[in-house]
Amino acid sequence: MTTTGFQRARSVEAKRQRENAVLDAARALGGERGIRQVTLTDIAEAVGMHKSALLRYFETREQIFLRLTADGWREWSPALRASLDALDAPDARSSVATAQAVATAQAVARAFASSLAARPMFCDLLAQAPLNLERNVSLESVRAFKLVTLEEVDLIVTSVRRLLPTMTERDVVDIVAAATSLSGALFQMATPGPEVEALYRSDPRLAHAVVDVEPRVTRMLAGMIDGFLAGRIAP
Amino acid sequence: MTTTGFQRARSVEAKRQRENAVLDAARALGGERGIRQVTLTDIAEAVGMHKSALLRYFETREQIFLRLTADGWREWSPALRASLDALDAPDARSSVATAQAVATAQAVARAFASSLAARPMFCDLLAQAPLNLERNVSLESVRAFKLVTLEEVDLIVTSVRRLLPTMTERDVVDIVAAATSLSGALFQMATPGPEVEALYRSDPRLAHAVVDVEPRVTRMLAGMIDGFLAGRIAP
Repeated sequence: MTTTGFQRARSVEAKRQRENAVLDAARALGGERGIRQVTLTDIAEAVGMHKSALLRYFETREQIFLRLTADGWREWSPALRASLDALDAPDARSSVATAQAVATAQAVARAFASSLAARPMFCDLLAQAPLNLERNVSLESVRAFKLVTLEEVDLIVTSVRRLLPTMTERDVVDIVAAATSLSGALFQMATPGPEVEALYRSDPRLAHAVVDVEPRVTRMLAGMIDGFLAGRIAP
Repeated sequence: MTTTGFQRARSVEAKRQRENAVLDAARALGGERGIRQVTLTDIAEAVGMHKSALLRYFETREQIFLRLTADGWREWSPALRASLDALDAPDARSSVATAQAVATAQAVARAFASSLAARPMFCDLLAQAPLNLERNVSLESVRAFKLVTLEEVDLIVTSVRRLLPTMTERDVVDIVAAATSLSGALFQMATPGPEVEALYRSDPRLAHAVVDVEPRVTRMLAGMIDGFLAGRIAP
Protein backbone atom coordinates (compact mmCIF):
# COMPACT_ATOMS: atom_id res chain seq x y z
CA MET A 1 0.00 0.00 0.00
CA THR A 2 1.37 3.44 -0.91
CA THR A 3 1.44 6.19 1.68
CA THR A 4 -1.40 7.93 -0.15
CA GLY A 5 -3.43 4.73 -0.19
CA PHE A 6 -2.74 4.30 3.51
CA GLN A 7 -3.81 7.85 4.26
CA ARG A 8 -6.96 7.46 2.24
CA ALA A 9 -7.80 4.23 4.05
CA ARG A 10 -7.15 5.95 7.36
CA SER A 11 -9.39 8.85 6.41
CA VAL A 12 -12.11 6.48 5.13
CA GLU A 13 -11.88 4.64 8.43
CA ALA A 14 -12.00 7.90 10.40
CA LYS A 15 -15.10 8.96 8.44
CA ARG A 16 -16.77 5.64 9.15
CA GLN A 17 -15.99 5.99 12.86
CA ARG A 18 -17.49 9.49 12.93
CA GLU A 19 -20.64 8.25 11.14
CA ASN A 20 -21.02 5.39 13.58
CA ALA A 21 -20.60 7.75 16.54
CA VAL A 22 -23.42 9.91 15.14
CA LEU A 23 -25.67 6.88 14.54
CA ASP A 24 -24.96 5.54 18.04
CA ALA A 25 -25.80 8.90 19.62
CA ALA A 26 -29.04 9.18 17.61
CA ARG A 27 -29.98 5.61 18.55
CA ALA A 28 -29.37 6.26 22.25
CA LEU A 29 -31.35 9.52 22.27
CA GLY A 30 -34.19 8.07 20.17
CA GLY A 31 -34.52 5.07 22.45
CA GLU A 32 -34.56 7.31 25.53
CA ARG A 33 -37.12 9.92 24.56
CA GLY A 34 -38.71 8.81 21.25
CA ILE A 35 -37.63 9.82 17.75
CA ARG A 36 -39.91 12.83 17.50
CA GLN A 37 -38.14 14.49 20.44
CA VAL A 38 -34.62 14.27 19.00
CA THR A 39 -33.26 17.23 17.00
CA LEU A 40 -30.09 17.47 14.95
CA THR A 41 -28.69 19.82 17.61
CA ASP A 42 -29.29 17.17 20.30
CA ILE A 43 -27.37 14.59 18.27
CA ALA A 44 -24.50 17.01 17.54
CA GLU A 45 -24.24 17.86 21.24
CA ALA A 46 -24.29 14.22 22.32
CA VAL A 47 -21.47 13.36 19.93
CA GLY A 48 -19.50 16.52 20.72
CA MET A 49 -19.55 17.91 17.18
CA HIS A 50 -20.73 21.19 15.80
CA LYS A 51 -23.96 20.89 13.78
CA SER A 52 -22.23 22.12 10.62
CA ALA A 53 -19.52 19.45 11.04
CA LEU A 54 -22.17 16.78 11.50
CA LEU A 55 -23.76 17.88 8.22
CA ARG A 56 -20.57 16.82 6.42
CA TYR A 57 -21.50 13.22 7.29
CA PHE A 58 -25.30 13.25 6.97
CA GLU A 59 -27.75 15.23 4.83
CA THR A 60 -30.38 15.89 7.48
CA ARG A 61 -31.74 14.70 10.82
CA GLU A 62 -34.15 12.53 8.80
CA GLN A 63 -31.31 10.81 6.94
CA ILE A 64 -29.71 9.79 10.23
CA PHE A 65 -32.95 8.17 11.37
CA LEU A 66 -33.62 6.62 7.98
CA ARG A 67 -30.17 4.96 8.23
CA LEU A 68 -31.18 3.67 11.68
CA THR A 69 -34.41 2.33 10.17
CA ALA A 70 -32.41 0.42 7.51
CA ASP A 71 -30.09 -0.86 10.27
CA GLY A 72 -33.24 -1.86 12.18
CA TRP A 73 -34.48 -3.97 9.23
CA ARG A 74 -31.04 -5.62 8.92
CA GLU A 75 -31.04 -6.48 12.63
CA TRP A 76 -34.72 -7.50 13.00
CA SER A 77 -35.01 -9.63 9.85
CA PRO A 78 -32.32 -12.23 10.77
CA ALA A 79 -33.70 -12.42 14.33
CA LEU A 80 -37.22 -13.07 12.98
CA ARG A 81 -35.94 -15.59 10.45
CA ALA A 82 -34.03 -17.43 13.15
CA SER A 83 -37.27 -17.82 15.16
CA LEU A 84 -39.14 -18.93 12.06
CA ASP A 85 -36.42 -21.40 11.10
CA ALA A 86 -36.61 -22.90 14.60
CA LEU A 87 -40.31 -23.76 14.09
CA ASP A 88 -41.32 -27.17 12.81
CA ALA A 89 -42.92 -27.11 9.39
CA PRO A 90 -46.34 -28.77 9.49
CA ASP A 91 -46.62 -32.09 7.69
CA ALA A 92 -46.75 -31.30 3.97
CA ARG A 93 -49.90 -33.43 3.58
CA SER A 94 -51.77 -31.64 6.40
CA SER A 95 -54.70 -29.66 5.10
CA VAL A 96 -55.67 -26.13 6.12
CA ALA A 97 -58.11 -27.41 8.70
CA THR A 98 -55.60 -29.40 10.72
CA ALA A 99 -54.68 -28.35 14.20
CA GLN A 100 -51.04 -28.51 13.12
CA ALA A 101 -51.42 -25.91 10.36
CA VAL A 102 -53.37 -23.63 12.70
CA ALA A 103 -50.68 -23.96 15.36
CA THR A 104 -48.02 -23.03 12.80
CA ALA A 105 -50.04 -19.97 11.71
CA GLN A 106 -50.25 -18.88 15.36
CA ALA A 107 -46.53 -19.48 15.91
CA VAL A 108 -45.62 -17.46 12.81
CA ALA A 109 -47.87 -14.60 13.95
CA ARG A 110 -46.26 -14.72 17.39
CA ALA A 111 -42.74 -14.69 15.91
CA PHE A 112 -43.53 -11.50 13.97
CA ALA A 113 -45.33 -9.71 16.79
CA SER A 114 -42.91 -10.60 19.58
CA SER A 115 -39.75 -9.83 17.60
CA LEU A 116 -41.18 -6.41 16.72
CA ALA A 117 -42.50 -5.67 20.22
CA ALA A 118 -39.03 -6.47 21.59
CA ARG A 119 -37.67 -3.59 19.43
CA PRO A 120 -39.62 -0.48 20.52
CA MET A 121 -37.30 2.01 18.81
CA PHE A 122 -37.57 0.09 15.53
CA CYS A 123 -41.39 0.27 15.87
CA ASP A 124 -41.10 4.02 16.43
CA LEU A 125 -38.91 4.30 13.29
CA LEU A 126 -41.28 2.10 11.25
CA ALA A 127 -44.13 4.54 11.92
CA GLN A 128 -41.99 7.65 11.40
CA ALA A 129 -40.30 6.53 8.16
CA PRO A 130 -43.12 7.00 5.61
CA LEU A 131 -44.55 10.06 7.40
CA ASN A 132 -41.41 11.99 8.12
CA LEU A 133 -38.06 10.32 7.46
CA GLU A 134 -38.43 9.60 3.74
CA ARG A 135 -39.59 13.18 3.17
CA ASN A 136 -36.49 15.18 3.91
CA VAL A 137 -33.63 13.22 2.34
CA SER A 138 -32.10 12.85 -1.12
CA LEU A 139 -33.53 10.43 -3.68
CA GLU A 140 -30.34 8.35 -3.33
CA SER A 141 -31.02 7.93 0.40
CA VAL A 142 -34.60 6.82 -0.28
CA ARG A 143 -33.35 4.37 -2.92
CA ALA A 144 -30.70 2.90 -0.59
CA PHE A 145 -33.28 2.55 2.20
CA LYS A 146 -35.90 0.89 -0.01
CA LEU A 147 -33.36 -1.59 -1.43
CA VAL A 148 -32.47 -2.72 2.09
CA THR A 149 -36.11 -3.25 3.08
CA LEU A 150 -37.01 -5.05 -0.17
CA GLU A 151 -34.03 -7.39 0.22
CA GLU A 152 -34.98 -8.24 3.80
CA VAL A 153 -38.63 -8.76 2.81
CA ASP A 154 -37.48 -11.27 0.16
CA LEU A 155 -35.51 -13.21 2.77
CA ILE A 156 -38.50 -13.25 5.14
CA VAL A 157 -40.75 -14.49 2.29
CA THR A 158 -38.42 -17.47 1.80
CA SER A 159 -38.44 -18.33 5.53
CA VAL A 160 -42.22 -18.14 5.86
CA ARG A 161 -42.88 -20.13 2.68
CA ARG A 162 -40.56 -22.88 3.87
CA LEU A 163 -42.96 -23.32 6.80
CA LEU A 164 -46.21 -22.60 4.99
CA PRO A 165 -45.65 -23.50 1.33
CA THR A 166 -49.27 -22.89 0.28
CA MET A 167 -48.83 -19.19 1.02
CA THR A 168 -48.08 -17.10 -2.08
CA GLU A 169 -45.27 -14.56 -2.24
CA ARG A 170 -47.93 -11.86 -2.25
CA ASP A 171 -49.50 -13.31 0.91
CA VAL A 172 -46.22 -13.07 2.79
CA VAL A 173 -45.37 -9.60 1.45
CA ASP A 174 -48.77 -8.47 2.76
CA ILE A 175 -48.09 -10.11 6.13
CA VAL A 176 -44.73 -8.35 6.46
CA ALA A 177 -46.36 -5.03 5.49
CA ALA A 178 -49.19 -5.57 7.97
CA ALA A 179 -46.83 -6.68 10.76
CA THR A 180 -44.54 -3.66 10.40
CA SER A 181 -47.32 -1.09 9.79
CA LEU A 182 -49.51 -2.34 12.64
CA SER A 183 -46.60 -2.64 15.09
CA GLY A 184 -45.53 0.90 14.16
CA ALA A 185 -49.01 2.41 14.50
CA LEU A 186 -49.97 0.49 17.64
CA PHE A 187 -46.62 1.30 19.29
CA GLN A 188 -47.47 5.00 18.86
CA MET A 189 -50.94 4.48 20.35
CA ALA A 190 -49.47 2.48 23.23
CA THR A 191 -46.96 5.19 24.17
CA PRO A 192 -48.95 8.43 24.24
CA GLY A 193 -46.83 9.87 27.06
CA PRO A 194 -47.32 9.55 30.84
CA GLU A 195 -50.13 12.15 31.18
CA VAL A 196 -52.35 10.71 28.46
CA GLU A 197 -51.66 7.19 29.71
CA ALA A 198 -52.81 8.25 33.19
CA LEU A 199 -55.94 9.76 31.62
CA TYR A 200 -56.77 6.49 29.80
CA ARG A 201 -56.39 4.57 33.06
CA SER A 202 -58.40 7.06 35.14
CA ASP A 203 -61.49 7.32 32.90
CA PRO A 204 -63.31 3.97 32.66
CA ARG A 205 -64.91 5.07 29.36
CA LEU A 206 -61.40 5.17 27.87
CA ALA A 207 -60.34 1.67 28.96
CA HIS A 208 -60.41 0.54 25.32
CA ALA A 209 -57.90 3.24 24.40
CA VAL A 210 -55.18 1.30 26.29
CA VAL A 211 -53.30 -0.76 23.70
CA ASP A 212 -51.25 -3.86 24.47
CA VAL A 213 -49.23 -4.12 21.25
CA GLU A 214 -47.86 -7.66 21.20
CA PRO A 215 -51.07 -9.67 21.82
CA ARG A 216 -53.09 -7.33 19.55
CA VAL A 217 -50.66 -7.67 16.63
CA THR A 218 -50.33 -11.43 17.21
CA ARG A 219 -54.09 -11.82 17.02
CA MET A 220 -54.48 -9.67 13.90
CA LEU A 221 -51.67 -11.49 12.08
CA ALA A 222 -52.86 -14.93 13.17
CA GLY A 223 -56.27 -14.09 11.68
CA MET A 224 -54.69 -12.87 8.46
CA ILE A 225 -52.37 -15.88 8.09
CA ASP A 226 -55.22 -18.28 8.87
CA GLY A 227 -57.37 -16.52 6.26
CA PHE A 228 -54.61 -16.63 3.62
CA LEU A 229 -53.99 -20.31 4.39
CA ALA A 230 -57.64 -21.04 3.68
CA GLY A 231 -56.80 -19.90 0.15
CA ARG A 232 -60.11 -18.20 -0.42
CA ILE A 233 -58.71 -14.65 -0.74
CA ALA A 234 -58.17 -13.46 -4.31
CA PRO A 235 -54.43 -13.89 -5.16
CA MET B 1 -85.34 35.92 25.25
CA THR B 2 -83.76 38.85 27.08
CA THR B 3 -81.44 41.20 25.27
CA THR B 4 -78.53 39.75 27.25
CA GLY B 5 -79.60 36.21 26.35
CA PHE B 6 -79.87 37.27 22.74
CA GLN B 7 -76.43 38.86 22.79
CA ARG B 8 -74.90 35.77 24.41
CA ALA B 9 -76.53 33.54 21.80
CA ARG B 10 -75.26 35.82 19.09
CA SER B 11 -71.74 35.70 20.49
CA VAL B 12 -71.87 31.89 20.92
CA GLU B 13 -73.03 31.68 17.31
CA ALA B 14 -70.26 34.05 16.18
CA LYS B 15 -67.68 31.95 18.02
CA ARG B 16 -68.99 28.79 16.38
CA GLN B 17 -68.81 30.43 12.97
CA ARG B 18 -65.20 31.51 13.57
CA GLU B 19 -64.30 27.97 14.68
CA ASN B 20 -65.91 26.48 11.60
CA ALA B 21 -64.09 28.93 9.35
CA VAL B 22 -60.78 27.83 10.92
CA LEU B 23 -61.65 24.12 10.55
CA ASP B 24 -62.73 24.66 6.92
CA ALA B 25 -59.48 26.46 6.10
CA ALA B 26 -57.37 23.74 7.77
CA ARG B 27 -59.34 21.04 5.92
CA ALA B 28 -58.84 22.76 2.55
CA LEU B 29 -55.10 23.32 3.11
CA GLY B 30 -54.56 19.80 4.49
CA GLY B 31 -56.34 18.23 1.53
CA GLU B 32 -54.29 20.29 -0.91
CA ARG B 33 -50.78 19.78 0.37
CA GLY B 34 -50.96 17.13 3.13
CA ILE B 35 -51.30 17.74 6.87
CA ARG B 36 -47.55 17.84 7.57
CA GLN B 37 -47.15 20.87 5.32
CA VAL B 38 -49.78 23.04 7.03
CA THR B 39 -48.67 25.41 9.81
CA LEU B 40 -50.79 27.47 12.19
CA THR B 41 -49.65 30.58 10.32
CA ASP B 42 -50.94 29.13 7.03
CA ILE B 43 -54.34 28.50 8.60
CA ALA B 44 -54.49 31.97 10.17
CA GLU B 45 -53.61 33.58 6.83
CA ALA B 46 -56.18 31.51 4.92
CA VAL B 47 -58.94 32.53 7.30
CA GLY B 48 -57.77 36.17 7.52
CA MET B 49 -57.10 36.16 11.26
CA HIS B 50 -54.02 36.98 13.24
CA LYS B 51 -52.37 33.90 14.78
CA SER B 52 -52.93 35.25 18.29
CA ALA B 53 -56.65 35.71 17.54
CA LEU B 54 -56.87 32.17 16.20
CA LEU B 55 -55.37 30.89 19.46
CA ARG B 56 -58.46 32.21 21.30
CA TYR B 57 -60.44 29.48 19.49
CA PHE B 58 -57.97 26.58 19.42
CA GLU B 59 -55.13 25.45 21.69
CA THR B 60 -52.61 24.51 19.01
CA ARG B 61 -52.25 23.53 15.34
CA GLU B 62 -52.51 19.91 16.52
CA GLN B 63 -55.86 20.54 18.23
CA ILE B 64 -57.31 21.88 14.97
CA PHE B 65 -56.28 18.72 13.14
CA LEU B 66 -57.39 16.47 16.00
CA ARG B 67 -60.86 18.09 15.72
CA LEU B 68 -60.78 17.33 11.98
CA THR B 69 -59.83 13.72 12.77
CA ALA B 70 -62.86 13.41 15.10
CA ASP B 71 -65.04 15.01 12.39
CA GLY B 72 -63.53 12.47 9.96
CA TRP B 73 -64.63 9.55 12.18
CA ARG B 74 -68.14 11.03 12.47
CA GLU B 75 -68.38 11.37 8.69
CA TRP B 76 -66.69 8.06 7.69
CA SER B 77 -68.44 5.80 10.19
CA PRO B 78 -72.06 6.41 8.97
CA ALA B 79 -70.91 6.09 5.34
CA LEU B 80 -69.23 2.75 6.11
CA ARG B 81 -72.24 1.54 8.11
CA ALA B 82 -74.58 2.48 5.26
CA SER B 83 -72.53 0.28 2.87
CA LEU B 84 -72.48 -2.53 5.41
CA ASP B 85 -76.22 -2.24 6.05
CA ALA B 86 -76.83 -2.49 2.30
CA LEU B 87 -75.11 -5.91 2.18
CA ASP B 88 -77.15 -9.08 2.50
CA ALA B 89 -76.43 -11.05 5.64
CA PRO B 90 -75.44 -14.61 4.76
CA ASP B 91 -77.93 -17.31 5.68
CA ALA B 92 -77.63 -17.83 9.45
CA ARG B 93 -77.24 -21.59 8.93
CA SER B 94 -74.38 -21.20 6.44
CA SER B 95 -71.13 -22.46 7.85
CA VAL B 96 -67.72 -20.81 7.61
CA ALA B 97 -66.83 -22.81 4.56
CA THR B 98 -69.74 -21.68 2.41
CA ALA B 99 -69.15 -19.50 -0.59
CA GLN B 100 -71.76 -17.12 0.80
CA ALA B 101 -69.89 -16.46 4.05
CA VAL B 102 -66.63 -15.95 2.12
CA ALA B 103 -68.35 -13.50 -0.23
CA THR B 104 -69.67 -11.55 2.76
CA ALA B 105 -66.18 -11.43 4.32
CA GLN B 106 -64.83 -10.03 1.04
CA ALA B 107 -67.63 -7.50 0.76
CA VAL B 108 -67.07 -6.29 4.34
CA ALA B 109 -63.32 -5.94 3.67
CA ARG B 110 -64.08 -4.00 0.49
CA ALA B 111 -66.53 -1.70 2.30
CA PHE B 112 -63.82 -0.77 4.86
CA ALA B 113 -61.00 -0.34 2.35
CA SER B 114 -62.94 1.58 -0.28
CA SER B 115 -64.65 3.95 2.15
CA LEU B 116 -61.24 4.78 3.66
CA ALA B 117 -59.44 5.09 0.30
CA ALA B 118 -62.14 7.51 -0.83
CA ARG B 119 -61.13 9.79 2.08
CA PRO B 120 -57.40 10.52 1.57
CA MET B 121 -57.24 13.40 4.05
CA PHE B 122 -58.86 11.23 6.73
CA CYS B 123 -56.20 8.57 6.03
CA ASP B 124 -53.51 11.24 6.41
CA LEU B 125 -55.07 12.32 9.74
CA LEU B 126 -55.41 8.69 10.94
CA ALA B 127 -51.64 8.23 10.56
CA GLN B 128 -50.77 11.63 12.03
CA ALA B 129 -53.07 11.44 15.08
CA PRO B 130 -51.15 9.01 17.34
CA LEU B 131 -47.72 10.25 16.18
CA ASN B 132 -48.25 13.98 16.29
CA LEU B 133 -51.75 15.29 16.88
CA GLU B 134 -52.47 13.71 20.27
CA ARG B 135 -49.07 14.92 21.54
CA ASN B 136 -49.54 18.66 21.63
CA VAL B 137 -53.05 19.20 22.99
CA SER B 138 -54.71 19.31 26.42
CA LEU B 139 -55.88 16.14 28.15
CA GLU B 140 -59.48 17.31 27.67
CA SER B 141 -58.94 17.42 23.90
CA VAL B 142 -57.50 13.89 23.91
CA ARG B 143 -60.45 12.68 26.01
CA ALA B 144 -63.03 14.31 23.70
CA PHE B 145 -61.30 12.82 20.64
CA LYS B 146 -61.08 9.31 22.10
CA LEU B 147 -64.73 9.35 23.17
CA VAL B 148 -65.79 10.15 19.60
CA THR B 149 -63.68 7.32 18.12
CA LEU B 150 -64.81 4.77 20.74
CA GLU B 151 -68.47 5.66 20.12
CA GLU B 152 -68.10 5.24 16.36
CA VAL B 153 -66.21 1.95 16.81
CA ASP B 154 -69.14 0.65 18.90
CA LEU B 155 -71.59 1.53 16.13
CA ILE B 156 -69.40 -0.18 13.52
CA VAL B 157 -69.17 -3.30 15.72
CA THR B 158 -72.97 -3.51 15.74
CA SER B 159 -73.21 -3.17 11.94
CA VAL B 160 -70.55 -5.82 11.26
CA ARG B 161 -71.97 -8.27 13.79
CA ARG B 162 -75.43 -7.97 12.23
CA LEU B 163 -73.85 -9.34 9.04
CA LEU B 164 -71.39 -11.76 10.61
CA PRO B 165 -72.84 -12.76 13.98
CA THR B 166 -70.14 -15.34 14.74
CA MET B 167 -67.55 -12.54 14.95
CA THR B 168 -66.85 -11.45 18.52
CA GLU B 169 -66.78 -7.79 19.60
CA ARG B 170 -63.01 -8.13 19.95
CA ASP B 171 -62.71 -9.46 16.38
CA VAL B 172 -64.48 -6.41 14.99
CA VAL B 173 -62.58 -3.95 17.19
CA ASP B 174 -59.37 -5.48 15.82
CA ILE B 175 -60.67 -5.19 12.26
CA VAL B 176 -61.50 -1.51 12.73
CA ALA B 177 -58.06 -0.89 14.28
CA ALA B 178 -56.35 -2.76 11.44
CA ALA B 179 -58.41 -1.03 8.73
CA THR B 180 -57.70 2.47 10.05
CA SER B 181 -54.02 1.84 10.94
CA LEU B 182 -53.21 0.11 7.65
CA SER B 183 -55.07 2.67 5.53
CA GLY B 184 -53.21 5.45 7.38
CA ALA B 185 -49.77 3.86 7.02
CA LEU B 186 -50.24 2.69 3.42
CA PHE B 187 -51.63 6.09 2.41
CA GLN B 188 -48.36 7.64 3.60
CA MET B 189 -46.32 5.06 1.66
CA ALA B 190 -48.45 5.60 -1.44
CA THR B 191 -47.96 9.39 -1.42
CA PRO B 192 -44.23 9.93 -0.95
CA GLY B 193 -44.24 13.08 -3.10
CA PRO B 194 -43.75 13.39 -6.89
CA GLU B 195 -39.94 12.97 -6.91
CA VAL B 196 -39.86 9.78 -4.87
CA GLU B 197 -42.82 8.42 -6.82
CA ALA B 198 -40.88 9.03 -10.06
CA LEU B 199 -37.88 7.24 -8.53
CA TYR B 200 -39.99 4.17 -7.66
CA ARG B 201 -41.33 4.02 -11.20
CA SER B 202 -37.92 4.55 -12.84
CA ASP B 203 -35.95 1.87 -10.95
CA PRO B 204 -37.29 -1.63 -11.71
CA ARG B 205 -35.78 -2.92 -8.44
CA LEU B 206 -38.15 -0.57 -6.59
CA ALA B 207 -41.34 -1.69 -8.35
CA HIS B 208 -42.55 -3.30 -5.12
CA ALA B 209 -42.27 0.03 -3.32
CA VAL B 210 -45.28 1.32 -5.29
CA VAL B 211 -48.34 0.85 -3.08
CA ASP B 212 -51.93 0.67 -4.33
CA VAL B 213 -53.78 1.25 -1.06
CA GLU B 214 -57.35 0.08 -1.70
CA PRO B 215 -56.68 -3.43 -3.13
CA ARG B 216 -53.86 -4.03 -0.60
CA VAL B 217 -56.01 -3.11 2.41
CA THR B 218 -58.99 -5.05 0.99
CA ARG B 219 -56.84 -8.15 0.66
CA MET B 220 -55.32 -7.85 4.16
CA LEU B 221 -58.71 -7.29 5.80
CA ALA B 222 -60.41 -10.07 3.80
CA GLY B 223 -57.72 -12.45 5.04
CA MET B 224 -58.17 -11.28 8.61
CA ILE B 225 -61.98 -11.49 8.52
CA ASP B 226 -61.86 -14.93 6.89
CA GLY B 227 -59.41 -16.06 9.58
CA PHE B 228 -61.58 -14.69 12.42
CA LEU B 229 -64.67 -16.32 10.87
CA ALA B 230 -62.89 -19.67 10.96
CA GLY B 231 -62.99 -19.18 14.73
CA ARG B 232 -59.60 -20.73 15.32
CA ILE B 233 -57.89 -17.59 16.64
CA ALA B 234 -57.75 -17.31 20.44
CA PRO B 235 -60.57 -14.97 21.58
